Amino acid sequence: MKKFQFVNPTKIIFGKGEIQSLAKEIPIDRKVLILYGGGSIKKSGLLEEIKTVLKDYQLGEFGGIEPNPAYETLMQAVELIRKENYDFLLAVGGGSVIDGTKFIAAAVPFTQDDPWKMIVEGLPIDQALPFAAVLTLPATGSEMNNGAVITRKSLQAKLPFFSPVGFPKFSILDPVYTYTLPEKQIGNGVVDAFVHVMEQYLTYPVQAKVQDRFSEGLLLTLVEEGPKALETPEDYDVRANLMWTATLALNGLIGSGVPQDWSTHMVGHEITALYGLDHAQTLAIVLPSMLEVMKEEKNVKLLQYGERIWNLASDLPAREKSALAIEKTREFFEAMGVKTRFSDYGLGEEVIEKIITSLEAHGMVKLGEKGTVTPQIVRQVLTLSL
Amino acid sequence: MKKFQFVNPTKIIFGKGEIQSLAKEIPIDRKVLILYGGGSIKKSGLLEEIKTVLKDYQLGEFGGIEPNPAYETLMQAVELIRKENYDFLLAVGGGSVIDGTKFIAAAVPFTQDDPWKMIVEGLPIDQALPFAAVLTLPATGSEMNNGAVITRKSLQAKLPFFSPVGFPKFSILDPVYTYTLPEKQIGNGVVDAFVHVMEQYLTYPVQAKVQDRFSEGLLLTLVEEGPKALETPEDYDVRANLMWTATLALNGLIGSGVPQDWSTHMVGHEITALYGLDHAQTLAIVLPSMLEVMKEEKNVKLLQYGERIWNLASDLPAREKSALAIEKTREFFEAMGVKTRFSDYGLGEEVIEKIITSLEAHGMVKLGEKGTVTPQIVRQVLTLSL
Repeated sequence: MKKFQFVNPTKIIFGKGEIQSLAKEIPIDRKVLILYGGGSIKKSGLLEEIKTVLKDYQLGEFGGIEPNPAYETLMQAVELIRKENYDFLLAVGGGSVIDGTKFIAAAVPFTQDDPWKMIVEGLPIDQALPFAAVLTLPATGSEMNNGAVITRKSLQAKLPFFSPVGFPKFSILDPVYTYTLPEKQIGNGVVDAFVHVMEQYLTYPVQAKVQDRFSEGLLLTLVEEGPKALETPEDYDVRANLMWTATLALNGLIGSGVPQDWSTHMVGHEITALYGLDHAQTLAIVLPSMLEVMKEEKNVKLLQYGERIWNLASDLPAREKSALAIEKTREFFEAMGVKTRFSDYGLGEEVIEKIITSLEAHGMVKLGEKGTVTPQIVRQVLTLSL
Repeated sequence: MKKFQFVNPTKIIFGKGEIQSLAKEIPIDRKVLILYGGGSIKKSGLLEEIKTVLKDYQLGEFGGIEPNPAYETLMQAVELIRKENYDFLLAVGGGSVIDGTKFIAAAVPFTQDDPWKMIVEGLPIDQALPFAAVLTLPATGSEMNNGAVITRKSLQAKLPFFSPVGFPKFSILDPVYTYTLPEKQIGNGVVDAFVHVMEQYLTYPVQAKVQDRFSEGLLLTLVEEGPKALETPEDYDVRANLMWTATLALNGLIGSGVPQDWSTHMVGHEITALYGLDHAQTLAIVLPSMLEVMKEEKNVKLLQYGERIWNLASDLPAREKSALAIEKTREFFEAMGVKTRFSDYGLGEEVIEKIITSLEAHGMVKLGEKGTVTPQIVRQVLTLSL
C-alpha cells in the first residue's frame, strides 16, 4: 500500500424527504444564493420546495449553469455575488452545477487577479464561500469531494482543479429526485461512476486489499443496479444504491493508498472541449481502447477485474480473460445506452490529431499511473476507438 | 436502504514514517499533553521519537491509561490538564488510550458536574479539547470515529458514549508500529474489527448493496490477512491492510443506511466489567452463539455471509449453510488465538445470571437490530457459550 492522506469533511444527508434538513443545516443569518442548471428543478417543483423550506432566509437565484460549466457563465454569478453580498451558496443539480458552484465559491474572494488563473496556473485556493449541494443526478461525485472541472469555451479548454476548501459543507441526497431523469442521464451517470472507479482501480497491484474490494463492490453494484435503473425508474432502492455508489466512487476513499490512472478522463476532456460530446460518452469511447492498448502494463489487475466483476473462470488463459474483460466492459456501456465508438457520434479519424494537439497544448504528454501514456499511445487508443 | 447521515472529519495520515507529520498538524502555539498506556511506547522508542518531532512545543506526559480505560484514572488527567492548561491532547496507543483521551477531552470543559454523568445520563457533549491520535494497535477504530467506551471500576460498569466533538483532528497510522505487538494483541484486534463489521452487516437485508459489499470486503481482508499477520509479523502490506481495515470497520461508513445489531458488544462489555476478560475475548465467546440463537431472524444475511465470505456453495441446503457459516466464524477466531468458550477462561455457568443482572441494571433488555434480544435470549446465548 502506498502512503496516503485522507480527509473528507462533507456531511451526507441521505434519504427520501431530507430536503427538510436544509433549514437545520444553513445558519439562519446567511444570505443564500440558489444555483441551478437548465431549469428542470423549476419544472419538477424542487425549486419551489426549497424556497418553502428556506422561507425565513434572504434568498436569490442564479440559473443557467450548463453541462460542462463555462467560466464565462460562472463569472456572471461571481459578479452578482460580489455585488449583492451573498454569503452561502446552494447548488441544486448534478455535477456541472456543483462543479460550477465550487469555482464560484473560490472565485468570489479571489479578487487579486482573474480567477481562471487559479486553474491554469495552479494557484493555491485557500478561501471560499461556504456552499452545499442538493444532488439530483448521481454521476460525478462532486457532492462529496473537493474537485471540479471547468470549461472555458473561448479557449476550447476543459480543466480540473482541486482545493482544500472545495468540499461542500453538506450534501442532500434524495434518490426520489432521480426518478424523472431521462434515460440518457442515468446511462451517462452509471458510465461516469464506473470509469471513476476504474481510474483508481485498474492500474497495477500494490497489495491494497481493502481498496480493491471496495472498488469491486462499487463496480458490482453498478453492473447489478445500472440496467435495473433503466427498466424500473421508480425503484427507490435501485436509485439509492446508484446514488450512494456514484458518491463513493469519487470521494477520495478508494483512491487512497493506490496508484491512479486518469488518462481516460484527460483524453475525454479534450474530446468534450473540441466536439461537445457528453463527458460519459467520451469515457465510454476511450476506456475500452485504453485498456486494450495498455493491457500488458495493466495485466494483473485486468485479470483480477475479469474474475471478480465479470465472473470469468480463474483457469481461463490470461490473454482470453483480459480480452473478455474488456469486451464485457464495452458491452456494459452499450447496454447502458452509451455508445463506445467515434463513428457512433458521426466522428472519424480527423479527430485524432486534433485531440493530440490539444493534449500537448495542455501539457498532458505523460498520462496514466506510470506516466507511460504518451501522445503516441493516445494515437493508438483513438485509432482503436474509431 | 434506510435514511442516514454520515460525516467524518478526521484526517488520516497513513504510512511508514508519517510521525514526522505531527509538527505540521499541531499548531505551534499549543501546549501538548501526550497520553499513553502501560509504557510500551517508552520501550519501543516511539515516545522519544515523538518528543523529538515536537521539540519546539511545550510538552507534558500522562501515562498509565489501562486497557478498558477507567474513569478513576482518566479524572487524574482531567485535573492535571485543568491545572496546567494543556490545550491539545495527543493519544499514543490503541483503542483504550484513544477512548480515554476522548473522555478526557470532553470532561475538561465539563465543569458544571461530575463528567461521569455525561455518559450515564447521556448529557449532550458539545465541547472538547482538540485531540489527535498516533495509533499503535489496529482494532477498535477509535482513531476515526466519535465514540468511546469507559469503565468505572467502582461500579463494575463499562459504558459507551458518542459525541459530535469526539472525532480526532487527525490520526497517524504507521503499520510499522504494529510489528512488535504481541500475537495476542494482533489476534484480539482482528477479532474486534471482524465483530465490528458483523454488528453492522449481519442483521436483515435492506437492499443496501454497497454497504454489504464494503462490509464483505473488510471481512474477506481480515480472513486473508489475519493469519498472515501472525505468521509474518514484519510484512508491511499485511499490517497496512489490517490497520486500514480495522479503521474502516468502525468509522460510520459501513453502518450508514443499514440496521445495526451491537447485542454481542453489549453482552461482551458486561463480561469484561465483571470478569476482566479482554474485549475481543468476550466478543469471540458471544458472537458464534448469538448467531446460532438468532439464526432464523438473521437467516438471509447469514446465508449471504456464508456464500460470500466462506465460499459456501450456493446450492447447499440453507440449514447446513448457516451452521457451516457459524462454525467457520468460530474456527477463524480460534485460529487467531482467541478462544470462544467460557470454559477456556475458567468460567462456568455461574456467570450467566450475573451477566444478565448487569445487563438489566444497565437497561439493556431489548438488544439487537430488532430489539428482540431479551434477557431470556441472552441466557440461551450464554448457555451455548459455556
